[in-house]
Amino acid sequence: MTYCVAVSTNDGLIFCSDSRTNAGPDILSSYSKMHIYDLGPDCLVVLLSAGNLATTQAINSQIDADLELSEGESLANCEKMNDVARYVARVSREQQEHANTTTGDADVDTSASFIVGGQIRGSDPAIYRIYKAGNFISASEETPYLQIGESKYGKPILDRILSPATGLEDAARCALVSMDSTIKANATVGAPVEVLVYEADSFNANHHVKLGEEDPYLLEIRRAWNEAIQAAFSNLPLFDWEKRTTRSLRAVTDDRTP
Amino acid sequence: MTYCVAVSTNDGLIFCSDSRTNAGPDILSSYSKMHIYDLGPDCLVVLLSAGNLATTQAINSQIDADLELSEGESLANCEKMNDVARYVARVSREQQEHANTTTGDADVDTSASFIVGGQIRGSDPAIYRIYKAGNFISASEETPYLQIGESKYGKPILDRILSPATGLEDAARCALVSMDSTIKANATVGAPVEVLVYEADSFNANHHVKLGEEDPYLLEIRRAWNEAIQAAFSNLPLFDWEKRTTRSLRAVTDDRTP
Repeated sequence: MTYCVAVSTNDGLIFCSDSRTNAGPDILSSYSKMHIYDLGPDCLVVLLSAGNLATTQAINSQIDADLELSEGESLANCEKMNDVARYVARVSREQQEHANTTTGDADVDTSASFIVGGQIRGSDPAIYRIYKAGNFISASEETPYLQIGESKYGKPILDRILSPATGLEDAARCALVSMDSTIKANATVGAPVEVLVYEADSFNANHHVKLGEEDPYLLEIRRAWNEAIQAAFSNLPLFDWEKRTTRSLRAVTDDRTP
Repeated sequence: MTYCVAVSTNDGLIFCSDSRTNAGPDILSSYSKMHIYDLGPDCLVVLLSAGNLATTQAINSQIDADLELSEGESLANCEKMNDVARYVARVSREQQEHANTTTGDADVDTSASFIVGGQIRGSDPAIYRIYKAGNFISASEETPYLQIGESKYGKPILDRILSPATGLEDAARCALVSMDSTIKANATVGAPVEVLVYEADSFNANHHVKLGEEDPYLLEIRRAWNEAIQAAFSNLPLFDWEKRTTRSLRAVTDDRTP
């Protein structure tokens, strides 16, 4: 399994992905699921992938091969991020069909899904979720994030924190906490965790970090969040009957005061 | 869909359930999924149900019918909570088989699963999760809670907060926050939310509340938790490059100081 999340804020984009790949509980390995296409001073594209590893590798190879050709559609000649989404969706569908044909009746799930995002000069940064069927959706003001893979565990914190006004680094920390909750809950999602912070109009992968299982910052975020959550708990409002108990205890104490 | 959670702590048990039932997005209705069997001064049993409503109603009816008979197995003559789990599992399997036969090839999912818990004098309080197949597991020191239904959204908060040492009311608030996250994330889980707090050795449903969508306490918990989470966020450790920026900004300010 996999967990990837991308956030679109007024200031730019955040991408976050885990690196665990599994084919059964005893075949765990580590592969980056974040591919960065730095296409010169006017275009940056980031691709996060989920699903069958052979299929996603074939799709990445096809995208690379198209970039090397001087003609035909490729990431380099898309004019808008919407074209990028349409192009990746087409490559994804073609390679999934090919994988289906190749594996025949071996009963393997060869599907793949993606988040693609970035910016091309002349338009705003954008992120898209590409379904395995080849259709795609973008983020919105109301839901400024997109997820693929094992997305349920990490959703509540995104819902509670994110808005288009969230600062870039806060959005990155929110994605990290969402990832950490998922890693804690599901053994098929695991470090290294990659985080990419893209500042609008920079056309640069401004900050790209890869945090291993024992990375001090990841451990620090986990510890700080656990402590903060526990502190937050102690301030939640009491049930009615607790107030009564507290009041009557106080009454008893008051009675004892001379 | 449904979400129910039960917690076992050193001080007693917590049960929490939603009330939304749906048969397609336009047939939403409200049914309690918490059944309390107050069986005199030596036994209290609480049943939380998920799955096909017709099946869970048939199972509840069978449990009630067995209680009215003077002979044969029933909740009233179980000696331990483990017997209660075994009895409920048997009734569940029988009624699921009956429902399967009745609905024939109508392609309806007639399965049901349960959390059952409580205490019988002479042994400790206990909770069990009964799978649709009829087998069951209990909670443990390491995992002091059990969930059924739409369980992923609400799991991280349980993992971060609960231990056997958690106070009863704190465990109830944790279950409520877990429920609220799930309601926010999934339209097929909804209020009224029922919470039952059982204090060990009391053999009484000490506190049982039903919180409607606009219940002041539910709204207050939601508001307080949202605020606390947002405050917690502002105290998370900074990324390395933020520290550098903060430092260099400070250096600039220092330079300006005469």
